[in-house]
Amino acid sequence: MFFASDNASAVPPQVIDALARANDGYEMPYGNDTVMTGVRARLREVFEAPEAAVYLVSTGTAANVLSLACLCPPWGAVLCHDTAHVQVDECNAPEAFMNGGKLLTVPGDGGRIDPEALKEALARLLPAAVHNAQPAALTLTNTTEMGTVYSPDQVAQLAGLAKGAGLSVHMDGARFANALVSSGATPAEMTWKAGVDVLSFGGTKNGLMGVEAVILFDPAKAQEFEFRRKRGAQLFSKHRYLSAQMQAYLADDLWLDLAKRANRAAARLADGIAALPGGRLMHPVEANMLFAEFPAEGHARATAAGATYYNLAELAGGSELGARLVTSWSTSDAEVDAFLSHLRG
Amino acid sequence: MFFASDNASAVPPQVIDALARANDGYEMPYGNDTVMTGVRARLREVFEAPEAAVYLVSTGTAANVLSLACLCPPWGAVLCHDTAHVQVDECNAPEAFMNGGKLLTVPGDGGRIDPEALKEALARLLPAAVHNAQPAALTLTNTTEMGTVYSPDQVAQLAGLAKGAGLSVHMDGARFANALVSSGATPAEMTWKAGVDVLSFGGTKNGLMGVEAVILFDPAKAQEFEFRRKRGAQLFSKHRYLSAQMQAYLADDLWLDLAKRANRAAARLADGIAALPGGRLMHPVEANMLFAEFPAEGHARATAAGATYYNLAELAGGSELGARLVTSWSTSDAEVDAFLSHLRG
Amino acid sequence: MFFASDNASAVPPQVIDALARANDGYEMPYGNDTVMTGVRARLREVFEAPEAAVYLVSTGTAANVLSLACLCPPWGAVLCHDTAHVQVDECNAPEAFMNGGKLLTVPGDGGRIDPEALKEALARLLPAAVHNAQPAALTLTNTTEMGTVYSPDQVAQLAGLAKGAGLSVHMDGARFANALVSSGATPAEMTWKAGVDVLSFGGTKNGLMGVEAVILFDPAKAQEFEFRRKRGAQLFSKHRYLSAQMQAYLADDLWLDLAKRANRAAARLADGIAALPGGRLMHPVEANMLFAEFPAEGHARATAAGATYYNLAELAGGSELGARLVTSWSTSDAEVDAFLSHLRG
Amino acid sequence: MFFASDNASAVPPQVIDALARANDGYEMPYGNDTVMTGVRARLREVFEAPEAAVYLVSTGTAANVLSLACLCPPWGAVLCHDTAHVQVDECNAPEAFMNGGKLLTVPGDGGRIDPEALKEALARLLPAAVHNAQPAALTLTNTTEMGTVYSPDQVAQLAGLAKGAGLSVHMDGARFANALVSSGATPAEMTWKAGVDVLSFGGTKNGLMGVEAVILFDPAKAQEFEFRRKRGAQLFSKHRYLSAQMQAYLADDLWLDLAKRANRAAARLADGIAALPGGRLMHPVEANMLFAEFPAEGHARATAAGATYYNLAELAGGSELGARLVTSWSTSDAEVDAFLSHLRG
Repeated sequence: MFFASDNASAVPPQVIDALARANDGYEMPYGNDTVMTGVRARLREVFEAPEAAVYLVSTGTAANVLSLACLCPPWGAVLCHDTAHVQVDECNAPEAFMNGGKLLTVPGDGGRIDPEALKEALARLLPAAVHNAQPAALTLTNTTEMGTVYSPDQVAQLAGLAKGAGLSVHMDGARFANALVSSGATPAEMTWKAGVDVLSFGGTKNGLMGVEAVILFDPAKAQEFEFRRKRGAQLFSKHRYLSAQMQAYLADDLWLDLAKRANRAAARLADGIAALPGGRLMHPVEANMLFAEFPAEGHARATAAGATYYNLAELAGGSELGARLVTSWSTSDAEVDAFLSHLRG
Repeated sequence: MFFASDNASAVPPQVIDALARANDGYEMPYGNDTVMTGVRARLREVFEAPEAAVYLVSTGTAANVLSLACLCPPWGAVLCHDTAHVQVDECNAPEAFMNGGKLLTVPGDGGRIDPEALKEALARLLPAAVHNAQPAALTLTNTTEMGTVYSPDQVAQLAGLAKGAGLSVHMDGARFANALVSSGATPAEMTWKAGVDVLSFGGTKNGLMGVEAVILFDPAKAQEFEFRRKRGAQLFSKHRYLSAQMQAYLADDLWLDLAKRANRAAARLADGIAALPGGRLMHPVEANMLFAEFPAEGHARATAAGATYYNLAELAGGSELGARLVTSWSTSDAEVDAFLSHLRG
Repeated sequence: MFFASDNASAVPPQVIDALARANDGYEMPYGNDTVMTGVRARLREVFEAPEAAVYLVSTGTAANVLSLACLCPPWGAVLCHDTAHVQVDECNAPEAFMNGGKLLTVPGDGGRIDPEALKEALARLLPAAVHNAQPAALTLTNTTEMGTVYSPDQVAQLAGLAKGAGLSVHMDGARFANALVSSGATPAEMTWKAGVDVLSFGGTKNGLMGVEAVILFDPAKAQEFEFRRKRGAQLFSKHRYLSAQMQAYLADDLWLDLAKRANRAAARLADGIAALPGGRLMHPVEANMLFAEFPAEGHARATAAGATYYNLAELAGGSELGARLVTSWSTSDAEVDAFLSHLRG
Repeated sequence: MFFASDNASAVPPQVIDALARANDGYEMPYGNDTVMTGVRARLREVFEAPEAAVYLVSTGTAANVLSLACLCPPWGAVLCHDTAHVQVDECNAPEAFMNGGKLLTVPGDGGRIDPEALKEALARLLPAAVHNAQPAALTLTNTTEMGTVYSPDQVAQLAGLAKGAGLSVHMDGARFANALVSSGATPAEMTWKAGVDVLSFGGTKNGLMGVEAVILFDPAKAQEFEFRRKRGAQLFSKHRYLSAQMQAYLADDLWLDLAKRANRAAARLADGIAALPGGRLMHPVEANMLFAEFPAEGHARATAAGATYYNLAELAGGSELGARLVTSWSTSDAEVDAFLSHLRG
């Protein structure tokens, strides 16, 4: 009954197997390994983006902040949702890697940026007036931090507003696979066809040990990214072990299968909570994360039985019993059902 | 009829005279000039702070960002009002000088931070949780960017909340003199007695050429400030010319007289606008800056006659005719009256 | 015949096994995994340092630059050898993570800092004079970039000079194990007993996939390190996979065995080259890296046969045929002998 | 008898007069003042550079570091002389404003970079290899820190080597006027005609209060400079007072006259020292700064009589009695002669 985060799960056996397979003899370092050649080709194929530049890094924060640093100068601003990981959970890594570039928040329900609020935010920024930060990029998190999913149309609408004002568009896809299988869109439809310039393509939360890809759909910034990756301490000498994990992730659509499993577990959990007396879902459950309210006794019973998850009320010092529950590829029906039975009492 | 900013005014003749007086023979550089010894002593006396460390820099941005850099580590956050100069008008200089430290905004009416909103903001930040920016400092702008003034009690209330959560307190006093004479408080009451640790003591907007003081009421950070000032390109070799200006500013309470003149001009302007058909003051007018609405024809007539000020509606792309009008020590009654007569038509 | 770098080698099977073992069920993220508890305890034991703070990161650059950032303020200087990895091979990552802190180079034969040169460098820096960078830390690379090894006495001599001038001491131990087994010293003798405050304890070059430890012998900077690690994008959610590798590395002295193998291979290679007509070792061969000159025909034959290594003359545009050859735990006698036979012709 | 630095001198009366003249009514802020329009035009005329972008800042450090930040990315390196002000005397301001860009030193006699040493330094840097800092710019100090002067031909030779390797060229002209009148060259010959892209055009050391110009001969970087200036806290609201000083400086070739006076005083001083028993000039005296050795008794007598200058031997903890002596526009023959008579005894 572990619902604290998808980042506490193990990796599927295919990943261990791939590491063992890659562990043979010498390999060129720093991304010049032969496995990476295949990964690069496969990701270009998956995204229908034959020119894209593709890199691997080891944390989601690294993927996000190296991407944003390529899109935003030190005197620029990146617009993000109030709840965005880059704003709330990266301890100023974006500002550090952007050398002082600024994040400006835009509100919106359910973790999604509201188009009207984005319009207002863009109107407030005066390009070329040296006094304010220069509008540089929009970053969208998909799956959002509230567990909702932007559809390709919603991405396109926001990206269109941003591009109309001269901004680039980044997508924080730490849970990209979960959003994708939820939406039914193709990878291309969810990204560059909707206006996304750079994608943080998450692996870690969906079954890898610590591997994320950065995909630059426009390769013009590729060399800059390479310098930033090195100076950001994210260039791996034994790169083959990142490549091998990503290779396994992409093979036979493993990444999509893993995400489907996580999303199904979340749906089962959501259905169960919604059916509880006093149970309420705080946002639509569209991927593998849900926010819910349920009676205090249920909370007490589940916790006593060893269930692990964030009790948001405690975190915020408030009095409600809202909870954040995250499922992963490895969440079993039995875990979900046991948790629900504790809630029910 | 120049109301665009107090930074477009000339300096009073005492300042020119002081420069001429200081222009004699050799003087030790880098703040070791004899005039500075007197300035330091005088500011300590004015603020009843015999231990305070006192420095001069050349821009208000420099004063603010060097101060904040001493209070906030690269992984920290500074809380400021939505409209704060550091947030809106310094093109990421705070983030640059804090090496990626973050600004987090807190709302409040009339440019003043709302105490309840501050409590909520403080509750959201988790000290020692490495994922979020660490709460480090609160910065208050007095006179605020909306032309209102924090009373010493209001400063003390907000500073108390901040200090209770372990934060330091900075005051952006680009228009400190205007706030002070408006409030009737002593310099000490408005600052360290109310919990302020570091003050940006403005000179430029109130009659100097480009001189601001930074006052560290607790001198523990003095050496760090000196290194930051040097690496921030703000250590002046011919420092005597900054000292001389500040000396003139403090002599015979010139700084207070200048601020009173500016505030009186704003009051005259406010009274005139409030008396206009269709005239409305958008915030209480407590210092030398006012925000007002008045009929479009008045706007057209004044502009045609050469009046200069910010038409906020135009800036924001909106449709209302709100205006920002700033007076200075050199604003004459004749200017104000001429402007009002154009508004009246 | 791969001698380009020890970073192109595979990992020993114990590492794969450890990953497979760790891949079971849920684990707390961010270094709170149970395996890490054991790693922390074991490293404290190995280093006889029960209070030390221990962290894992994923690249040698990360280990170095996060360490130095804790020892050197933005207005400080770190003294390093001319050839140090931080100076030459990290694309300004040190300056980036130190927020503009400076590296100052000190010469010395064979990759080791010359004590007299260090004295001169320290004499040139004026503490507390704001104009120059403030002397903050000394970093020593052991094994050096020239393949030589500092003895504990040599470390102590240099560290003593540094500490006498108020500096902290860091050791870049990307090849620490190779230096250690070469010197016969204990880990404690080579580090804190000789004056080292912080150690980058290398794993990657000696048999891990991408794991380095940072050991702070004085834990006073531990919390700062944790904030810097997070904002440096080096805090791993699925941290167990780093812990597991380090656990395997330390178990049964595997790390020392691997280093001995690499050093033995280098010695065999060195003996062979020294015995060649026209062969010459450019520095004493004390660990697993050697610099040698040998006739052009040997170079041509070896390269044609597929040997991979750095031809320094080509790199520098010079005319000599110096070569850098690095062995690893996986270098076989057969590889060495085949290479030597190609050189011999 | 003040020879510690030219930065301890007063300003000529024309500068005070210009400030008084500028002190009339309202003026647009931030460089939009009418006086600046004239300054811009005049500097373009003086430098025969009709397209150049021209800015004023308040310190020499600011001029240098904002310039270099426009020429060197965070992963780049700027080559400078061992003794360059940016390397030795700016407390990491270059690294700060370049966001971690690196300085690499190149030796050469008498403060001038040796062309052969520059060739070697350029050969060591591998463009596009991500491991080392990318070669980005060369900065030359003219007048050098040793009081010598690069001729236009010498500038052209070094700039040619740099440009051949793809680097930009900056000149730190804190004492540009002294170099210029010494060389007999035109401003254009000394700068853009010899390959200089950006010039820090010093005013402060040669008679202004704290004003330096930055001249971008290629205006392509002008907008970037403007953002950097603002975020560097160097954009002045009451800019007219910088403009007025620069206007006076350029009028009637005042700047050249002031430099000639300073150079003549240095020559008089040099002649006197060279004629002393035991007197020796350590470098050719080509501008307004000299390094000399003379007997200890002379040193004692002069110091006792109140002469102020740097005793380098004391600074470096050495035993020789080398001295650095700097003259300025205001150094009188009487001062020089009095000092010489004390040396003579």
